[in-house]
Amino acid sequence: MTAFSYEFRVAWVETDALGVVHFSNYFRYFERIEEAYFASVADGLSALMEEHRIAFPRVEAACTYSKPLRFGDSVRGEMHLVRLGRSSATFGFSLYKGKDTEPSAEGRITVVCVDVATWKAVEMPTEIRALFDHAFQEDK
Amino acid sequence: MTAFSYEFRVAWVETDALGVVHFSNYFRYFERIEEAYFASVADGLSALMEEHRIAFPRVEAACTYSKPLRFGDSVRGEMHLVRLGRSSATFGFSLYKGKDTEPSAEGRITVVCVDVATWKAVEMPTEIRALFDHAFQEDK
Amino acid sequence: MTAFSYEFRVAWVETDALGVVHFSNYFRYFERIEEAYFASVADGLSALMEEHRIAFPRVEAACTYSKPLRFGDSVRGEMHLVRLGRSSATFGFSLYKGKDTEPSAEGRITVVCVDVATWKAVEMPTEIRALFDHAFQEDK
Amino acid sequence: MTAFSYEFRVAWVETDALGVVHFSNYFRYFERIEEAYFASVADGLSALMEEHRIAFPRVEAACTYSKPLRFGDSVRGEMHLVRLGRSSATFGFSLYKGKDTEPSAEGRITVVCVDVATWKAVEMPTEIRALFDHAFQEDK
Repeated sequence: MTAFSYEFRVAWVETDALGVVHFSNYFRYFERIEEAYFASVADGLSALMEEHRIAFPRVEAACTYSKPLRFGDSVRGEMHLVRLGRSSATFGFSLYKGKDTEPSAEGRITVVCVDVATWKAVEMPTEIRALFDHAFQEDK
Repeated sequence: MTAFSYEFRVAWVETDALGVVHFSNYFRYFERIEEAYFASVADGLSALMEEHRIAFPRVEAACTYSKPLRFGDSVRGEMHLVRLGRSSATFGFSLYKGKDTEPSAEGRITVVCVDVATWKAVEMPTEIRALFDHAFQEDK
Repeated sequence: MTAFSYEFRVAWVETDALGVVHFSNYFRYFERIEEAYFASVADGLSALMEEHRIAFPRVEAACTYSKPLRFGDSVRGEMHLVRLGRSSATFGFSLYKGKDTEPSAEGRITVVCVDVATWKAVEMPTEIRALFDHAFQEDK
Repeated sequence: MTAFSYEFRVAWVETDALGVVHFSNYFRYFERIEEAYFASVADGLSALMEEHRIAFPRVEAACTYSKPLRFGDSVRGEMHLVRLGRSSATFGFSLYKGKDTEPSAEGRITVVCVDVATWKAVEMPTEIRALFDHAFQEDK
């Protein structure tokens, strides 16, 4: 499968008193990879969301941690589409430190398309479904 | 089962531009409940960890989100022991808004006892196992 | 002068790899003290702000750091009113560790009352001015 | 004067329920610019600090906020040297949104060189002083 790839460095503020990245920050890394992905395929995701009056709150998030990350570590984040439903989507994430081939951490996030007024699940607009799908279509 | 209970209010900095608590902050809430629990059963958890030269990094964390939390919401957090292994422990968390009986979110965190020098799993010291177990013993 | 006082403990996530509280978190402590203050004098600050369609963005924030804070430290935060203008207010903050009489850090934050639609400064509503002033009136 | 320049985008997690970047995050932006600067002039700042057993805690930080930043905004951060003392240094920061010529925010941070064992101020090592000075020497 094709994955979207994004590189970043561990910032000081993301570490804790054990000298490693705080476990909550991995979820922020996942979101940062998502943001880079959507910025790369569409300037207009926010505009589309406003136009359709929808939002994509997370309904599930999970991470498994294998090896700690430390200040200054260079990290390659990968994102792939796990499942695309009628109103929901699940993305998978892997974080690799430096040249590692084993991930330091892996996770997944499930979002659901809701009407911003009612916060109820609604069917995902076709244009947005296409963005969710875009980078990952080689193996479909 | 007996659960440890802890109340707090949603802070402004924890919200995002949708007006709801950012999904990563639920993991910080879980940790805050843990900290309140360990502060309630032992001043000396940090001291014990230093003495034994161990740490408890998270190896797994997960959350399911049912209803959004907003600035100023009063939240009751509950923590219970899900599983206590030889070197690992899993805690479960539920967050209830106001007088709600349905949780706004539920999650779990698994920690593993490691030697701080080698970052390898080691057996949990008996005193610490007792702390992990303490508040939850009624139904054992 | 009378100060509003609020106690809290340093959380793990607030520390960094030097083992001390990250300097940015002191500003979040100041805000937390503010929130506790406003919660103590008025349930309805948010409601008042919505009714008047105003917000109080920060226009200035500063902190001087004297002694580091560490995980688990018990901290007493104090807040006082430095200056109350027509559309702006400046609050001062001091953080004391444990029984210390010398502050670990001191800071101040200036907010300005703006119309949420135009983000332009407007005169502060009288009810809100009273809340800003309330806890501090003994020495006026 | 020559300034070091660094570009980034506002992340979702940095916003708050008013739809703007939380005031505390500007200090994290300043630090991120610093980190990019030091990464650009020296792989080895962390190594030098460890070798000399020193750290650079912040003793003062301040920010003035002119215009709000929002999710997705492209921001150019600039950093310059304000003052280089015997054991301390002050850096100035400006954040510009998009093509703006007026800053959205400006701030400064003063660090002091301390011995990590005693947390007392010590004279800055020459190699580190050179790094602090490096990008800014054109106008000296």
